This record gives sequence, C-alpha cells and structure tokens, in this order.
Amino acid sequence: MEKAIVLLSGGLDSLVTAAVAATQCEELYFLHVSYGQRTQERELQSFAEISRHYQPVQTKVLDWRWLAEMGGSRLTDASYQPVKSQKQQDFPDTYVPFRNATLLCAAVAWAEVVQANRIYIGAVEEDSSGYPDCRKVFFEAMQKTIETGSGNNPPISIHTPVIDLHKSEIVALGMKLKAPFELSWSCYFATDEACGMCDSCRLRLNAFSRAGFADPIKYSRNDI
Amino acid sequence: MEKAIVLLSGGLDSLVTAAVAATQCEELYFLHVSYGQRTQERELQSFAEISRHYQPVQTKVLDWRWLAEMGGSRLTDASYQPVKSQKQQDFPDTYVPFRNATLLCAAVAWAEVVQANRIYIGAVEEDSSGYPDCRKVFFEAMQKTIETGSGNNPPISIHTPVIDLHKSEIVALGMKLKAPFELSWSCYFATDEACGMCDSCRLRLNAFSRAGFADPIKYSRNDI
Repeated sequence: MEKAIVLLSGGLDSLVTAAVAATQCEELYFLHVSYGQRTQERELQSFAEISRHYQPVQTKVLDWRWLAEMGGSRLTDASYQPVKSQKQQDFPDTYVPFRNATLLCAAVAWAEVVQANRIYIGAVEEDSSGYPDCRKVFFEAMQKTIETGSGNNPPISIHTPVIDLHKSEIVALGMKLKAPFELSWSCYFATDEACGMCDSCRLRLNAFSRAGFADPIKYSRNDI
Repeated sequence: MEKAIVLLSGGLDSLVTAAVAATQCEELYFLHVSYGQRTQERELQSFAEISRHYQPVQTKVLDWRWLAEMGGSRLTDASYQPVKSQKQQDFPDTYVPFRNATLLCAAVAWAEVVQANRIYIGAVEEDSSGYPDCRKVFFEAMQKTIETGSGNNPPISIHTPVIDLHKSEIVALGMKLKAPFELSWSCYFATDEACGMCDSCRLRLNAFSRAGFADPIKYSRNDI
C-alpha cells in the first residue's frame, strides 16, 4: 500500500501533483507550511479547500514564521534588498533560501511518524524560475540524504511527477485528472483577485493559454 | 575570511564544536533551536551563557514547536509509544525524526542570508546512540544537497570536527581549547541538577572519567 505525504502549497503545480498522488496512492497526508509568504492566508484557504476535495487521511499546517524571520527573500520580506545583484545569481530574488530542502525535511519527519513511504512535491525544473532547489540533481541528492539520514523504514522515496513538464502540460494533466483549478492560488502578491502581473501569475496565465483552457480563477488584470 | 554558522544546542559536543570553530573562523553566528525537547529552557540558558563566552557576531533562536507536534520521539513526547519495537530499529526512541537534516537546512538558509561559508555541527558517529543522522555518510549526502539545492555562493561546507572522536577525546579537546564545560547541559530529562542516569548523562560522565577530568556541572546522582 502506498502512503504519501503531499507538500501542498495550494498553487497550480502542487495541486496537479496532489491529483497525481491521488491516482497512485491509497492514503494521502497533506502538508502545508506557512512561512511568512505574503499570501499565506490565501494559500491556507486554498489548502483547506483542496483538502476538502481530496479527503486525505490527515492534514497538517506548520507555522514556520522562523523562515521569514531568517530573511533573504522578496517573497517573505517586502523591504528585502539583495546583497548580490541579479547578475551575480542565476535566480530571482523571490527565491527563499533552501526552502524546498527544509520542506522536504519536514515531510520526511512526518513520513517517519505515520510510516508513509512516499513524498510528493510539485517542483518544476524546465519552466521554473531557475531556483536551485527545483532541479532534478537536487532531488537526487536529497533522496540520498533521506536514505542515509533517516530511519527510512519503510524506505521513503521523493516523487516529483511534474518536474519534467512544461507549465502548459501541467495544466493539461490537471484537466485530464479533473484537478479543481478553481480552488488553487498562484499569485505572489494579491490575495483577493490574482494580480495577473507577477512572475507566478504570468507563468500561470501563459500555461492555460498554451494548453487551450481558460483559467477559472479571477484576475484583476490579465490583458498582458 | 571564514564565516561560520554554529549549531549550538548547549550540550558537550556542540560546545566543543563551537570551541573548534572559534579557533578556525573570524566570524561566528550561533544558532539554537527549541523544538519542544523536555529540557529546552535549560538548553536555552546554556546557549545564552556559551554565547556570552564566545561573543559571536549574531545569535539566533528558532521556535520549532512544530517538530515536537510532529511527534515520533521520546525526547519531545513523554507519552510516546514507538510503533516499532526497539528490535526493529537500530537506534533509541530518543531519535527525533530527521532532526539533524532539518537543523542543517535552517543553518544553510541563514548562511545564505549572512553569506557564511561554513556550518559547524557537533555530531558524533562512534560513541553516539546510533542515530542515522549522525553518520558521516549522511553528512556527505547533505553536503551534496547543499551544493545542488542552495544558492551556495560563496560555497557552503559542513564541518563536523568531533565526528570521529570518542566522547572522552571530545572532553580532552575541549579542555585543551578551554571550553567552558560548566556552562554546558547534556541531561535529557532534568533541568536543575543533571539526573546522572539518562543515556546522555551516562555518556558524559563516562567521558569525563575516561579523560581524567572532573565534570564541573552538578548531578543529583552520579554514583553509577
């Protein structure tokens, strides 16, 4: 029997990842982390609604204010000024230092407690923003870290079902699996109607457009 | 210039690790995590006193109640009943699921923010209790995870200066470096005078005895 921890932010990628996990696993455990991202209340709402849809065995929301207090990201700190210029690093200043590794650690801890054997995370390598912790080479290293550093009994494996897909393919996959896109939230900055202008909104709108579907959420501006 | 994040619980191993870091690095950043361990207030006191001694550039204490809420350890939950018998796993039920990996992730996040290039952690392989996340093979995997999953600019390396030492050698090294052992705390359960009976106290007392030094902290019982 497959028992899976699913990291679910409430965004498009994690929603479709949850949809895939639902087809592959008998038991689901949904994990959400509030880490001081600007839209955390809105994300929490999406998490709750998506959970109601998929009915996992258990849900867990972690309060990770410490990650915001750590600083170092425009996503958690509006006044953030990068030490390095964007030229000196290959990814945008919305990168939250080592976030995916830390999220995976929490998922491993919970997996050990409930004896889950899979962890699902909706990372995307191709169409992502170039964050280092979205690359396959990182997940392979993390897999090795789990095998050597945890109880790992039963063996725990990381699953990244959308990592090789383009965003439009993720939308198409979600449509095929009847993922409730209307419950998801992607905007980095707004919380009532999506702004339609931030990196995350633009990637999402573009993906729906290329996939040939209308995005069911509301935008304050999507004429771009 | 070497800038180091030092994970400092306030116990014997992390104290001596901090003492080593102090001889190798120009700038120190001390990181402590309260994760609902029974003696967290006492550890916090040791952390504050050891920080006063070594005068790091910055100290940071993270509130990680979420790790205790996750459960799965006798260290954070007095009523914990292991799912598996001790025969089924190779380490004691004081193991906190994937704790060292999670601690290192927080250290990496902070290192990225303050541009530190080293992380020190006082893990011990030989004389430890057999925790999987104290083994060199785990730290090697974690190093690779940092290289692939973080900004890693400047490159960040994990340092485990006491990992190959016996506990008595750690005491001897600390004595040589004039580490303030009287400020450290090791007992898993008591908070005023060390119990002298838990795994951690016994390892510590035995180490001082073999090294030929008296342990400067008080025990309610140390005749064992």
